[in-house]
Formats: sequence, C-alpha cells, structure tokens
Amino acid sequence: NPTYPVARQTNVITLRTLYMSKAAAKTQVEFEYDGPSMKTEVPGPRSKELTKQLGEIQNVGAINFFCNYEESRGNYLVDVDGNRMLDYTHLLYPYWLSAFVNRPALGIMPPENFPEKLAESLLSVAPSGMSRVQTMACGSCSNENAYKAMFIWYRNKERGHNNPSDEDMSSCMINQSPGCPDFSILSFMGGFHGRTMGCLATTHSKAIHKLDVPSFDWPIAPFPKLKYPLEEFTRENAQEEARCLEEVEDLIVQWRQKGRPVAGIVIEPIQAEGGDNHATPDFFKKLRNIARKHGSAFHVDEVQTGGGATGKFWAHEHWGMDDPADIVSFSKKMLTGGYYHKDELQAYRIFNTWMGDPSKNLFLAEVLNVIRRENLLEEVTRSGKTLLQGLYQLQDQYPNLLSSARGQGTFCAIDIRDDATRNSILLKARDKGVLLGGCGDRSIRFRPALVFKEYHVHMFLNVFSDVLAEHN
Amino acid sequence: NPTYPVARQTNVITLRTLYMSKAAAKTQVEFEYDGPSMKTEVPGPRSKELTKQLGEIQNVGAINFFCNYEESRGNYLVDVDGNRMLDYTHLLYPYWLSAFVNRPALGIMPPENFPEKLAESLLSVAPSGMSRVQTMACGSCSNENAYKAMFIWYRNKERGHNNPSDEDMSSCMINQSPGCPDFSILSFMGGFHGRTMGCLATTHSKAIHKLDVPSFDWPIAPFPKLKYPLEEFTRENAQEEARCLEEVEDLIVQWRQKGRPVAGIVIEPIQAEGGDNHATPDFFKKLRNIARKHGSAFHVDEVQTGGGATGKFWAHEHWGMDDPADIVSFSKKMLTGGYYHKDELQAYRIFNTWMGDPSKNLFLAEVLNVIRRENLLEEVTRSGKTLLQGLYQLQDQYPNLLSSARGQGTFCAIDIRDDATRNSILLKARDKGVLLGGCGDRSIRFRPALVFKEYHVHMFLNVFSDVLAEHN
Repeated sequence: NPTYPVARQTNVITLRTLYMSKAAAKTQVEFEYDGPSMKTEVPGPRSKELTKQLGEIQNVGAINFFCNYEESRGNYLVDVDGNRMLDYTHLLYPYWLSAFVNRPALGIMPPENFPEKLAESLLSVAPSGMSRVQTMACGSCSNENAYKAMFIWYRNKERGHNNPSDEDMSSCMINQSPGCPDFSILSFMGGFHGRTMGCLATTHSKAIHKLDVPSFDWPIAPFPKLKYPLEEFTRENAQEEARCLEEVEDLIVQWRQKGRPVAGIVIEPIQAEGGDNHATPDFFKKLRNIARKHGSAFHVDEVQTGGGATGKFWAHEHWGMDDPADIVSFSKKMLTGGYYHKDELQAYRIFNTWMGDPSKNLFLAEVLNVIRRENLLEEVTRSGKTLLQGLYQLQDQYPNLLSSARGQGTFCAIDIRDDATRNSILLKARDKGVLLGGCGDRSIRFRPALVFKEYHVHMFLNVFSDVLAEHN
Repeated sequence: NPTYPVARQTNVITLRTLYMSKAAAKTQVEFEYDGPSMKTEVPGPRSKELTKQLGEIQNVGAINFFCNYEESRGNYLVDVDGNRMLDYTHLLYPYWLSAFVNRPALGIMPPENFPEKLAESLLSVAPSGMSRVQTMACGSCSNENAYKAMFIWYRNKERGHNNPSDEDMSSCMINQSPGCPDFSILSFMGGFHGRTMGCLATTHSKAIHKLDVPSFDWPIAPFPKLKYPLEEFTRENAQEEARCLEEVEDLIVQWRQKGRPVAGIVIEPIQAEGGDNHATPDFFKKLRNIARKHGSAFHVDEVQTGGGATGKFWAHEHWGMDDPADIVSFSKKMLTGGYYHKDELQAYRIFNTWMGDPSKNLFLAEVLNVIRRENLLEEVTRSGKTLLQGLYQLQDQYPNLLSSARGQGTFCAIDIRDDATRNSILLKARDKGVLLGGCGDRSIRFRPALVFKEYHVHMFLNVFSDVLAEHN
C-alpha cells in the first residue's frame, strides 16, 4: 500500500455541525488525502502552458486541465499545478487501484507528459505537410472520425465558415438535413476501411463484411486492375488507370447532381484486404488532383500499409508528392489508432472519452527508436527485394500455379490458380511451420515483421517451394 | 535481452543451395529461434480444447489457434501446443519488442489464459440470462457492433435462417438492399450512445455531437419527462410514461410501413449525457414487452450506468425482471468495452482485429475482487442515500436555485435555475476543490468513484452549500 500522504493545508473545507455529526468512520485512509487543497486557479499556469503545447498538435477545446496521475489517489484528482480536488466526475477508471490501471480521459484531462510523448512518437514520423494528429483507440474509429472531420470541413466551406443556423441545429437532432447533410464519401471497389457503419459504407472487399447491415448511398469507383510486373505493362496499365479516373469524376458529378456531394475520397495506397491491388504513383497523383478540383478532401488510409512494411514509413511516400493528402489514418503497426490531418481539417467536435490510450505512445516511441537504430526500413527494402525476386523465380517455375507476383518492400503478394489451391497451400505451409495469410479471391499475402531479414526470406522460399511442388 | 532459446528440432527446413548461398549474416540472434518447429497439427489438441472453452463465451469462428506469447519472439509465433511457426501474417504488433507491447489479435490468435480471464472478469458479473460476451475496444464500437448483431439477427429471422441469396451477396457490395437492408434502430430523444456513425444516428442529446454528419432515417421516440421525486408524482408520471410507450408502438408500425422495420430498440436505464433522466421499472418492463411483441431486439446501453454506481452492478437490475434485455453493452468503469448478449444474438460476422485488449480483463478481475471484498455496492447505496438526502435538504433551502434532485446509488443529479448559473456553480466549486460535471441543459451530475464514502459526501455537501449561498 502507498504511504499515507500528509494532508496539506485544506483551504476550502469548513466542516459544519450539520454534516459533521453524520460523518462515517473512515476506512482505507492509507489510500487517500484528507481533503481538497487548492494552490492556483484552475487551469493553473502549468496546465495552460501544456494546453498551449498540445494545441499545436491536436484539439484542446474540451481539455479542463492536465493531471498528475501519480499524485492522484482515492477520490482526489491532483492537477499539474498541485491542486487537489475532490472528484465528482469520476466517469472513467478507478485510478485508485494502481497507476497502471489508470486510463486517462485524454479528451478532458490528459497527463502531463502527453504533448512530449506525442512529439517523440507520432509527430516524429508525421507525413509530409502534416503537423497535427488525432489519436483514436482503433482503426475503425480512426477512419470513422476522419470521415466526420471531412464532413464538418466540407459543410463549413458550404456555410462560408459562418455559424450553423437554427435549422441546422434543430434538424440534426432528428437525423434530418440540413443539420445532417446528405454528404457522401467516394470509395473504391475492393477497398477495406473498417467495420463500423460509416467505414463499412466504404468497405467493398468481401460481402460477408457488409451483409445485413444498413448502409449509405455513396459512390463506389472501380480500382484499377493492373497487370504485373507493372513496369512490363505500362501502356495497358495507364489506359486502365485513365478509365478508373474518368469514372471517379463521373461519379463525383452524378452524386453532386443527386444532392449527395462527395465530401471526401478515401483510398488505400495498396488495397490490402481486397487482394493487394497496386496502382501507380501517376494514378494517385491524378486522383489527388481530381479531389482538389472538386473540393473534396483526400484521405489516404494507411491502417494496413503504414509503419514501414513497404520500405518507406508511409506507403504514400512512394508517390513522390509534396502534398499527397489531406488526411492520413493509421493503426495496427502504429500501436495506436488515429489520423494526421492538415490544419484546415481540424474539427473541434471530434471527440470521445478516451481518444486512444497514451501508454501506446510510450511504446511507439520505443518502437520508432529501434526502427531508426537498426535501419529497419533499409532492411525491409533489402528483404523485400529478395522476396519479390524469389517469387518471380517461383512464378516462372510454376506458371500454371502462380501469377502476378507483386510488392513494395516486404508488403508482397502472389496470385494462386484458384481459391481451393490457395487454401490448401496455406494449410500445407502452416503444417511446415510457415504462417501465411490470404487476401482477395485467390491471393496469398506476405506481411512479415520489420525485423524479417534476408535469411528468413530464404527459409520461407524453401518451404514455399516444397509446398508448391506438392501442388503442381 | 532475453537469453537465446536453444533451437529445437526443425523438422521442416531443408536449406537448398539456391537460397543458402544468398543467406545474409544474422543479426539480433539473441531475439530469435533458428527455424520453425512443429510438434502437432495446427490447431493442436490444446488449441482445440481452448477454442471449445472460449466458444461457450463468444464467437470463435475466426480463431486459428491459441498463442503462447511468452515463448513467441522475433519472427516466430509459438502456439499453445508448442508449435513454432515463421510468421508471415504479422499484421499486428511487433511482439518482439517486449511481451508487454504485445497486443494480441484476439479475433484470430488469442492468448492461452483468455477464456479463464474472461470467466474471472466479465462473466462473473454477467447480467441475468446472459452467458455470452463480446469484448470491444471502446464504448462506441461496443454499441456499433451490438447494432450490427441485431441487424444480422433480424435479417436471419426474415430469411427463415436460410443462407443469403446471390442477390443479397451482390447487392450488399454496392451498399444496396436487399443485401444492405433498410433496417432501423429505434432510439429516444435525449439518449447518448456514442459518436461513430451508427451510434450517432441513435444519439440525440446535443446538436453539437450530430451537426454536419450524414445520418439514417431511423425512428426517435420521446423519453418520459418525469417529475421528481418519482414517488410523489406517481399518477402524472405513469401518464407520461404511457404516452411515450404509445408513441414507441406507433413509430414501430410507421417505420415498418415505410419499409424500414425496427430491428432493435436501444435505451439507457438512466439517460446520462441527456440530463440524468430517469424512468420507472414499469416503463422499462412495458418497453421490453413492446420490443418482444414486434420482434425487435431490446438493447440496454449500460456504458454509463454499468459497474456499480447505481448501487447494483447493472442499473437494469433495479427493474426486477427475469429477462430484462437481449443485449447489454458496457465500457468506461468496466475498463474494456463490449456487450453481453443472448445466445440467439450471436453473430459470427462480428469481428475486428483487436476485439478489445485482454490486459484490461486482468485489471477488471482485480477491480471486481476489490468491489466484492470491500462491499463497495453497499457502500455506494449508503453514500448515495446520504447524498440524495443532502440534495433534498439543499433543494428545500434554495427552492429558486435547485430542483428535481434525483438519483440511484451515487448516480445522482440536480437541476439548476439556468445554464449560466449552473456553469458558474461548476467553476466556483472547482475553485474550492470539488470537481463537478454538467449534463443536459442545466443539470449537475454526480459521478463519484465506487470508493466514495459518506464522509466524502459530507465534505462535498459543505462546499456545495457554500457555493449555493454565493448564488442565491
């Protein structure tokens, strides 16, 4: 048990006879302070300073003050200015049990080191042009809130950045426009962006994800179906990409005409769940321009591709653009969910109780240190090249079985003759001690950790080669 | 660094000259095994046994095998049968960094002690009639997935539990019915169920939560506006509740007629965010019967009320029913999000990568131990009674300032003359070291921790009394 903290001057409590006479015997005093103790106004100078710091990074509109969770105990919350308050807002975690159980309500009362840890972790790998990040608990919440940020941004533009009308405020309470406008997000067939209901309306990889769940009438564009290796089919691929981009523009116009304007476009740099479908940097460049031309936000979903597996920290860095996106969402390898965004897409109304979990930032800072110290992105590039070369060789060796080997870094995939053969190969490989996963209709995807070295690749290619021989 | 594990028999790797010659020098060998090692088929007997155990509690359709995360390292995943596999599915966490960083993909590869820890934690406090629980990362995800479970359940009934048609499968991919049916969830004005887009369509507490976000055309019923103390206004209150229930039935019929049948009804036992609005057990009993009569699922959202603050572990236990709900969702005080559900509402398609975080179950088991050992629910009942009596006294003393004191356990609230006065009281109380929160238009809510004792109540009432005197 922690030692009983000496009660400091309690400058506010004047016990009156009325209640004094009823006071129960104290128990568990060792966990608690004796009463409130106020040193400054709230928020005090330290809280104000930290709010200013955090305001450079994310929304601080809902923050009351910063907490010192180490000093907080029992029914008392201690802030970073040393104010000790009797806590009647205890919506959240019973932090009296242990400092570790404590999961602060980041949206209202973040811990003191939160801005510093954000800078060391998420901000240190921020995509080009983005200095703001909003943390979230999972990938679906990250995309869901990114969509909300795009809707709010788009509607603010429509309103000329004026305050919402009374009609806006009253109609939204009953789910009706103009308060809840009929905006849409344009997504791509084959895309996967999560399973909550907003995300799900933009997910189109497998029927089983979507079946029986009500959805939105939002436009869905074709994602280019390219031939691999990309560099051998440049002409055909460019035609296919042009076809898809034309369709995107048509859909934007159609949906505007039917009163459901496209507030944002969401896309993965590599369609992962949908079968590891790649497109060229030229496609993404033109798509980004189409978004800008039509006033739609451009949201790059890096939940699967972010974190280094493609050999760059963000897959969209391969496009070589100065201004690749308005929003970049992440999760998985980043340990925490969230999204980076342009300043103008800041929405003070994006909020929930937890807003992620700051303990994940501590871990992420360590992970990033290891990635840098061990040059893991170079390692990924090297291993990925060896892996893809090996897949090309096996594809030449088994042309009836394998096709379309493709990849960036170790983020690789290959197509198998058919679904049944694919599943048999996955099981046989597992029996030989290699865990592989499927994606799309008949692809196998490779998703090793960043510490996957060339000798692991060789080990894998040997097993894979044995398994393929059994299926030829 | 962990000691280098002795490589066990590697029964699958036959290194061939082709790749052998290219093998890179190993680094970081201290973190890794030398190769795969298979002891049994996968899943092995231990994995099968654990899958069976977990199958009694939640969905196991997507589980491959159970993992031994302590033994897993580097690029190798070790399962509970001792099989060591080269991991090419590393979508998730770099578990090589530290066992603690490891956040298992519960949906696919849960850790060995997961069923046991679920039984010790969440199942040990399961609501009446419910033996199944699905964990989730946050409150919004919990409700969002509960809605999906209700939609899937409802559609399965419609289909006579037959397989989905080809038309179902193809239409859902483009967000259209019948695959994405026009089902609705009936919610109540003043309710708060979260901020993702499905949840948000059932949230009606503040315009600012909903403004600018597209929504669904779902029915919204009035929540009873009762007079407090409830026992002094039984006749008027019963009339008001009857009016609301009649409206609920009308809405269900209307929405069925316009082709948007009500798959589920969602309600809070006490509308929290909306202003601490109470209803009587009789109201909830009749509402539950209406749901049953019309074939809609009945979802009780205990995200705010669950965990003991009302003096019972679940607020709906105050209704005294044998079969109070089909789904009960939770988060906040429970440390993890999720929902309990009836067997028939099990949906194998409810899934995401993380499905919550098992470390939270460990903490919850400890929290529950403390709640039992310290009889905290009795403590809450005692402190709550003292708090409410004190609020009644102050309300008599300041009739122009205070009204409608109400509460269950320490889950109490009181109305203030107007919004401006309420906010002034909140600030003044904070300056005196008492943290209070607002809810609804002009209410103050009390949400102390479960360890809030009677003497804390007296301390608070003194401060509150001083603050009120300044505003009279």
